[in-house]
Amino acid sequence: MLPFERVSIIGLGLIGSSVARAVRDAMPTVRLTGHDADVGVRETVRALKLCDDVADTPGAAVTDADLVILCVPVGVMGDVAASLVADIPADAIVSDVGSSKAGVAEALAKALPDNVIVPAHPVAGTERSGPEAGFAALFHQRWCILTPAPGTPDAAVARVSTFWERLGSNVEIMDPAHHDLVLAITSHLPHLIAYTIVGTASDLESVTQSEVIKYSAGGFRDFTRIAASDPVMWRDVFLTNKDAVLEMLQRFSEDLTALQRAIRWGDGDALFELFTRTRAVRRSIIEQGQDDARPDFGRSDH
Amino acid sequence: MLPFERVSIIGLGLIGSSVARAVRDAMPTVRLTGHDADVGVRETVRALKLCDDVADTPGAAVTDADLVILCVPVGVMGDVAASLVADIPADAIVSDVGSSKAGVAEALAKALPDNVIVPAHPVAGTERSGPEAGFAALFHQRWCILTPAPGTPDAAVARVSTFWERLGSNVEIMDPAHHDLVLAITSHLPHLIAYTIVGTASDLESVTQSEVIKYSAGGFRDFTRIAASDPVMWRDVFLTNKDAVLEMLQRFSEDLTALQRAIRWGDGDALFELFTRTRAVRRSIIEQGQDDARPDFGRSDH
Repeated sequence: MLPFERVSIIGLGLIGSSVARAVRDAMPTVRLTGHDADVGVRETVRALKLCDDVADTPGAAVTDADLVILCVPVGVMGDVAASLVADIPADAIVSDVGSSKAGVAEALAKALPDNVIVPAHPVAGTERSGPEAGFAALFHQRWCILTPAPGTPDAAVARVSTFWERLGSNVEIMDPAHHDLVLAITSHLPHLIAYTIVGTASDLESVTQSEVIKYSAGGFRDFTRIAASDPVMWRDVFLTNKDAVLEMLQRFSEDLTALQRAIRWGDGDALFELFTRTRAVRRSIIEQGQDDARPDFGRSDH
Repeated sequence: MLPFERVSIIGLGLIGSSVARAVRDAMPTVRLTGHDADVGVRETVRALKLCDDVADTPGAAVTDADLVILCVPVGVMGDVAASLVADIPADAIVSDVGSSKAGVAEALAKALPDNVIVPAHPVAGTERSGPEAGFAALFHQRWCILTPAPGTPDAAVARVSTFWERLGSNVEIMDPAHHDLVLAITSHLPHLIAYTIVGTASDLESVTQSEVIKYSAGGFRDFTRIAASDPVMWRDVFLTNKDAVLEMLQRFSEDLTALQRAIRWGDGDALFELFTRTRAVRRSIIEQGQDDARPDFGRSDH
């Protein structure tokens, strides 16, 4: 039993194109229609044959859909949803893949008041962007968080859950505000910090850019991967999840100040205590299959 | 022509045992002697047959060496060097692998005033510790920085350079104070920040530890790898490279405060400008072979 038979994907970048590929793999009889605002992306997706049909307008992409998934930056989610209102079937379920949820859920509900909305966030991605960067296995063993509003029909939530499970994900239901708090610490703050340190390193006068790159294997290079993520996507995440990000950032800054003080005063015990404690977190992540168990993410072959 | 014929390695953890393996691979006729303060480590190294001989005391390990490499935490470098003074041949060259250099160079010169000292820092490692975690390819295509004091005989520097080149590294000569500044931004600050955010995430009340682990694929898990690095090694790095780390930390904090302000005031252009700029740094690192070109460090197989 397929949860949906006619799926429309609006926005065919890394995530949208990965959803298309994963649907093809897992549910090959589903009819897939796609649209992207960028004509070049549409041509690429046609050439790669990722969808049965690529429509030139968002409206044309949704006329017979039973599931519409918006895979666009969270800042334009409301406007893109609004552009569908004349064409979307009243019984189509609307979902999305945005990294912040409270604001998006509100924008979707406002733009499409007659449709059932089941907001979703697959916690998966890479630093690449665009339809060529997508791949079917992106959601395997990753969590997908659904944040339906109270009163959303259980059947609709169940169908969207089944859809993500078929793509290989584990599904969790969460309150949107709690989602935004959890992701602020597990995703948004890490990105903010990575972007910051790469900027700091680029702006030094005492150390050249060339030195920063040459000696990046000491740890810095890890941060550059995250800091290569899509700029529009991440700008929108910070603007739409402001309160939770600022809260986590405040805590991080306090903790960093405490470490700064420990370094200044030569308090080796405080440093050792923290550095020992943090090892255990890594172990748990690996035990739960959320990262590669091989050293150095397995990036060296040995 | 071998640069050295009898190499002694004091400290047989990740780095020391990797040096032993790499010497075996690249210069199999070199006689390798090792010592570690930990009897369990000595037994492991004997069982793995990584050295021709494993000595029970540091002095016994160096009696006929022409190169002695100290692979111990930087905080004990001076004391370990001092323990060799009665046994080390006067013509043995002394080197190390410490991650901070000005303080170490001073400590080594003070402890072994009659030997030529060529301090070294191979910029390579993983988050693992101990002799079983080492591997021969660790130094391939990585940089090794030598920081000899003015007046060090050129021939000695050339021999240590050749040694590291034979292990697969590119060698650079640098002033120790400049080394410490460069590594403060490319290695020490990234570790400090990673340790901090993993600590911050562990201490939250609003988000459970279990949630932090489940949703870590959003970015957080990257930081946990670095924050799983050896606590003693890293405590010592921060205590011995205090000034440079505090200088870089101050700049980072200023930049983070500017971003915090941009988020608070909804200045999307400032965020977008930084996020676009940081992408280029990643590209340069990959072009120069200092990281895996595959997305997500290649940790997903697709």
